[in-house]
Amino acid sequence: MSLSYCNLDDTKAGKKLLKGTKVDKLKNLLTAARVSSYSVPGAAGWRYIYAAKAVDDEVLSLLADLAREQQVVAKYRSILDGSWANVGENRMVLHHLTRGQAGKPVVHEGKNLGDFYAEQNRKIAEFAGQVHRGTIKGSNGKKFTTVVQIGIGGSDLGPRAMYLALENWVTVEKKKLALKAHFISNVDPDDASAVLASVSLDSTLFILVSKSGTTQETLANENFVRQTLSKAGLEPDKHMVAVTSETSPLANSPRYLASFYIDDYIGGRYSSTSAVGGAVLSLAFGPDVFARFLSGAHEADKAALESSPLKNAALLDALIGVWERNALNLPYTAVLPYSQALSRFPAHLQQLDMESNGKSVDRDNKKVKYATGPVIFGEPGTNGQHSFYQHLHQGTDIVPLQFIGFLESQAGADVLSEGSTSQAKLNANLAAQIVAFAKGSKNENPNKNFAGNRPSSLLLNRKLTPETLGALLAHFENKVMFQGLLWNINSFDQEGVQLGKVLTKAVLAKGDMDGALKAYADLLGV
Amino acid sequence: MSLSYCNLDDTKAGKKLLKGTKVDKLKNLLTAARVSSYSVPGAAGWRYIYAAKAVDDEVLSLLADLAREQQVVAKYRSILDGSWANVGENRMVLHHLTRGQAGKPVVHEGKNLGDFYAEQNRKIAEFAGQVHRGTIKGSNGKKFTTVVQIGIGGSDLGPRAMYLALENWVTVEKKKLALKAHFISNVDPDDASAVLASVSLDSTLFILVSKSGTTQETLANENFVRQTLSKAGLEPDKHMVAVTSETSPLANSPRYLASFYIDDYIGGRYSSTSAVGGAVLSLAFGPDVFARFLSGAHEADKAALESSPLKNAALLDALIGVWERNALNLPYTAVLPYSQALSRFPAHLQQLDMESNGKSVDRDNKKVKYATGPVIFGEPGTNGQHSFYQHLHQGTDIVPLQFIGFLESQAGADVLSEGSTSQAKLNANLAAQIVAFAKGSKNENPNKNFAGNRPSSLLLNRKLTPETLGALLAHFENKVMFQGLLWNINSFDQEGVQLGKVLTKAVLAKGDMDGALKAYADLLGV
Repeated sequence: MSLSYCNLDDTKAGKKLLKGTKVDKLKNLLTAARVSSYSVPGAAGWRYIYAAKAVDDEVLSLLADLAREQQVVAKYRSILDGSWANVGENRMVLHHLTRGQAGKPVVHEGKNLGDFYAEQNRKIAEFAGQVHRGTIKGSNGKKFTTVVQIGIGGSDLGPRAMYLALENWVTVEKKKLALKAHFISNVDPDDASAVLASVSLDSTLFILVSKSGTTQETLANENFVRQTLSKAGLEPDKHMVAVTSETSPLANSPRYLASFYIDDYIGGRYSSTSAVGGAVLSLAFGPDVFARFLSGAHEADKAALESSPLKNAALLDALIGVWERNALNLPYTAVLPYSQALSRFPAHLQQLDMESNGKSVDRDNKKVKYATGPVIFGEPGTNGQHSFYQHLHQGTDIVPLQFIGFLESQAGADVLSEGSTSQAKLNANLAAQIVAFAKGSKNENPNKNFAGNRPSSLLLNRKLTPETLGALLAHFENKVMFQGLLWNINSFDQEGVQLGKVLTKAVLAKGDMDGALKAYADLLGV
Repeated sequence: MSLSYCNLDDTKAGKKLLKGTKVDKLKNLLTAARVSSYSVPGAAGWRYIYAAKAVDDEVLSLLADLAREQQVVAKYRSILDGSWANVGENRMVLHHLTRGQAGKPVVHEGKNLGDFYAEQNRKIAEFAGQVHRGTIKGSNGKKFTTVVQIGIGGSDLGPRAMYLALENWVTVEKKKLALKAHFISNVDPDDASAVLASVSLDSTLFILVSKSGTTQETLANENFVRQTLSKAGLEPDKHMVAVTSETSPLANSPRYLASFYIDDYIGGRYSSTSAVGGAVLSLAFGPDVFARFLSGAHEADKAALESSPLKNAALLDALIGVWERNALNLPYTAVLPYSQALSRFPAHLQQLDMESNGKSVDRDNKKVKYATGPVIFGEPGTNGQHSFYQHLHQGTDIVPLQFIGFLESQAGADVLSEGSTSQAKLNANLAAQIVAFAKGSKNENPNKNFAGNRPSSLLLNRKLTPETLGALLAHFENKVMFQGLLWNINSFDQEGVQLGKVLTKAVLAKGDMDGALKAYADLLGV
């Protein structure tokens, strides 16, 4: 099939959708029957349930037309097959390949890139085994018990969220973590100070993560760590591995115990399933857990090839998001996981979504005439209920919601209180909130009235495990990718972060600041 | 002065403002001169700098008129004096009084409430001293080294954010924490499981925090903790104190080592300076640190009494927020602290702001015809720069920004890298971002073009200390209060959280769920 790239407002379905409408029927649309009919299976046991979204069969049919007109599944297939989908930077987009081959083999300049990513995993697994067995130790002979990832953005948020998501699960399943993990990201020196004060340096292994090998924050933090190790009488080179690209200044350096590679075809925010996430997760949990995480993601990638839009969970999620953004004109989405283990998953999605689709130009660098990616925010339930849900229920604007839930807890430990377990309470809250948001509740006192018509979806699974976490991550990666294809924007570059970098160098070149940051560094003279 | 309560659209200034306008002049407005002229001192060394906000002298004059028309400083004074400002619930609003008396003495039913709050602080200080000296120990004789707060919403987010903000500072200033603190909030049993697995139970003191004594999540987590302590052969009653109201079922119970009290006049999200924050912060840091934190907040409360709107930092911040919400029609605000210690401060502000002002009815419970509180989100810089700033710079919508910065780090430890310290890099990034957002940068390639006109303010201080943290917290509490007064809404109730509680009980009464959460608990039959 030949692919044609069209802006949303150049498609028939997009033109209809962009006429706009209001959320006013949801209250009546939501019935018990819809909870089973407006539900589609994802990978690894996930279900995407959109019964409480403000769509009906007519809207769904329009959205399916849009997906077909925009050929998004075929375009996804071309990404899997190695098309140069990151058009601005002229790069392939290969994060899917880090978890298995779902398309054709991708061979570039004689190198099979699927084999390359698999080889990095094999090297990481071997290294992790040596650390776990104590074959590789710290410079004064102590066994490594702690691992600290030094990285920022995609080298931090995704791996950190995945670590937190499985830390409890591994502790219960394997009795203990192989290594406890910490993260240093911020160039604020207090970040490194605090983390280094909380670990035993002689038994700590550091992972330096920078694809380019030139990330200002990460190099500064590396220096901070090396200086601290040296002051403690330890040999920094014996306490550090690197994850970088083969062409980076950090690659293959004797300053690291080992180096693991990624390449230009793995975007930072899509790198949790590459060596960027692989090193820390394999060291902390064991390579077997990381492999199970990858298999879940791979299963979701294959599921996203489903050509019928209404049977493809990631695509349907993307389409409903476009409906909310461009027909209902709602500029944000709250992600609400009812799972404490997913406490930092919204922060990862915030990067994934806002850095991918917070764009104003199409694939050909022309300004688009419609809204693109929304603001993403969220906190775990039930915590959020006692925080910002007041605004979600009774604020003057409607915020679309994306719930995530699990039938079982990770640790299994629970307590009976007032006749129910905590897990039952957690899920009763989840069910109650979905219905409360959609249907509202009438009261003569407007301050006790709930207007309802607040749309939400639910991603539901039995339990948060390595497989279901991998599939959940890939679901959102693919959702974001599909939305980028629907909007005809490039979800894989990030030109919007460049200006700040350039201006920061200009400020630093001026030397000391003070006062009102030296009148915004004398307004930079730019 | 007699106070009259008017909706925004019933004021002269409000009518003008609600006509709306666009952000299109900021790029040219921002000059070096403005950085000093559009800057106002707050308490404890803070400066609120609004040079990069989309306002000019004409707009400021309109906003000052609005503040005067709405008599907001006089209304604030009446709150300090004990007016029943929480009209829906018929309660006074006395969180300011927890840090000192800035108005008249508040005597209710013969009780001086300022004395009452001070007395709780004295009791907490005495108890903390006994714990620190080892006079009070765990049930098997171990000295307490760890404190775990059990609470949710206002009993969690504020105290947690304040703890994280000063943990590093205290560790450096006092060589070590008095007690290390952890927090259990979520009813998800995995939250308690993970925290309890990470501490030594025999040396851990728990603080149960629930004003009503009936918070579902908190009572479930108390049971979880008590069960775990009992299983470990410890006496739960000897490991737990309560922070609650004197009329709660938890009050004055032998099940707690001690009880500290708040009352109905302290809203959860405003309770960090009451016993809710006081117990955990005094135990972790020492009562002297908590007292310094209170003094900073008290200083900010007094500064907020400044009657000239353009000289009152909290009021001016509030007014510019109303301008952005109601004239520029921007529905969100990002809070961006350039300080890792403030990592959870945005999450606290998210509750503070969205739960206070996410309302659709005025003080008299009539529906308002204008937008109220915005969606609040944020992460620390420079982390956010590598995450969602792409969207802020080049997304299709404009998000107003609120930066927070410090000239010095807390720990003082730093490293020289590429010719500059990490602290210099942090602040160079901050200065560069403000200018980049406001002025943008022209490029022929639209994908490399930055439109600019992204408004931001900066709260700047020398260093994050107990005093400056207290003043920062109070600045935002007072900003939110002033906005509520400008919109003529009640910022102190939260009827929007009630429906979910009622429906949750209905779901739990039905017994077991499963599948799609048992078709949203059979749609509740409500």
